[in-house]
Amino acid sequence: MIGLIGGTGAEGRGLALRFAMAGRKVMIGSRNPERAASAAEEVRNLASDLDIQGSDNVTAAKNSQVVIIAVPYAGHKSVLAQIKDHLVGKVVVDVVVPLIFKDGVAHASIIEEGSVAQQAQSILPASFVVGAFHNISAHDLLIPDQPIDCDVVICSDSLKAKQCAIELAQLIPGIRPVDGNGLECSRYVEDFTALLLNINRIYGRHSMVKISGI
Amino acid sequence: MIGLIGGTGAEGRGLALRFAMAGRKVMIGSRNPERAASAAEEVRNLASDLDIQGSDNVTAAKNSQVVIIAVPYAGHKSVLAQIKDHLVGKVVVDVVVPLIFKDGVAHASIIEEGSVAQQAQSILPASFVVGAFHNISAHDLLIPDQPIDCDVVICSDSLKAKQCAIELAQLIPGIRPVDGNGLECSRYVEDFTALLLNINRIYGRHSMVKISGI
Repeated sequence: MIGLIGGTGAEGRGLALRFAMAGRKVMIGSRNPERAASAAEEVRNLASDLDIQGSDNVTAAKNSQVVIIAVPYAGHKSVLAQIKDHLVGKVVVDVVVPLIFKDGVAHASIIEEGSVAQQAQSILPASFVVGAFHNISAHDLLIPDQPIDCDVVICSDSLKAKQCAIELAQLIPGIRPVDGNGLECSRYVEDFTALLLNINRIYGRHSMVKISGI
Repeated sequence: MIGLIGGTGAEGRGLALRFAMAGRKVMIGSRNPERAASAAEEVRNLASDLDIQGSDNVTAAKNSQVVIIAVPYAGHKSVLAQIKDHLVGKVVVDVVVPLIFKDGVAHASIIEEGSVAQQAQSILPASFVVGAFHNISAHDLLIPDQPIDCDVVICSDSLKAKQCAIELAQLIPGIRPVDGNGLECSRYVEDFTALLLNINRIYGRHSMVKISGI
């Protein structure tokens, strides 16, 4: 089971759809289990034979072998503290970006720990944290037959977590996983999302990242 | 004339080569004019009919309509202060990345002004600063027949500077200019260079960036 904590947002639902389309069992978690159930139903209706359930965040964390954190940054620390005990020994994939908006421009906040992924690792010392999936368009993920043409840069200090994120990325056709070195490099990928959102506003499109030359 | 301040480094020589290959007159500047002259000669020998001279930084700034800043970050503030009077009313293209290396890992320093490009604009209030060309492999630029397959993200608060950087980018076949919004967004592009250098070390290649979906 893949758990999507804070999975009712667009990025969480988009990843839930794509992982379920690849035949994986998915549980969407939310602080509000009714919202999780209705998000799960909404995503199930996008394609056939999707195994997606909704529940509260603790239940989603407890029942999943791999847990993806997709909460808004404002809830990042508090949600992780709440589900921490259910993440021991597990791979935790953090897709959170510390975005703020000022006068219509997206900015990335400076994170004391260096990156959101490093913040997660410091809250979850007994888990294997990996930063990934920051730069994918949620809009495109949520259209089942929309081809995704991007790279997913994967940053972790744990080989096991890196391998897990690589396998998750490979579940989505068109995505190439790229090794982005350790957790301390996650900042560059997280922050680049702010640039992409500003590019989206200028071009009226859904931009993503590819690394050329490798 | 295109001036390359601090143009004796790999990135400066690479850009000098490519702009000269496109038929533009180029002046490489350095604190040490003999080093500039020898860098100019070295680049001239890479292809035929290149109009590249070497001189001190002040002469290069004074004689150029467009000035590219390619110094190491450590010299960024002091070199700009030194040539400031010769940059009034001109477009200044800043390609500098605030890199530091620790235990073989590349990191981007936090810049008080937000980004290196914003630092340049604050030192040069009477110039039109644009951040660009941060993510291109100097190694690939310096091989005349090496195709370059990347986007150049261009960040500026000045339309005139943006347009100038777009035209410079279009001088190099294979490069697509991408509007990256204002100067405050330059940080994301500057910092991403640290990630690319770490990816280069892992893959043994010369990585660059493309923005997909636009």
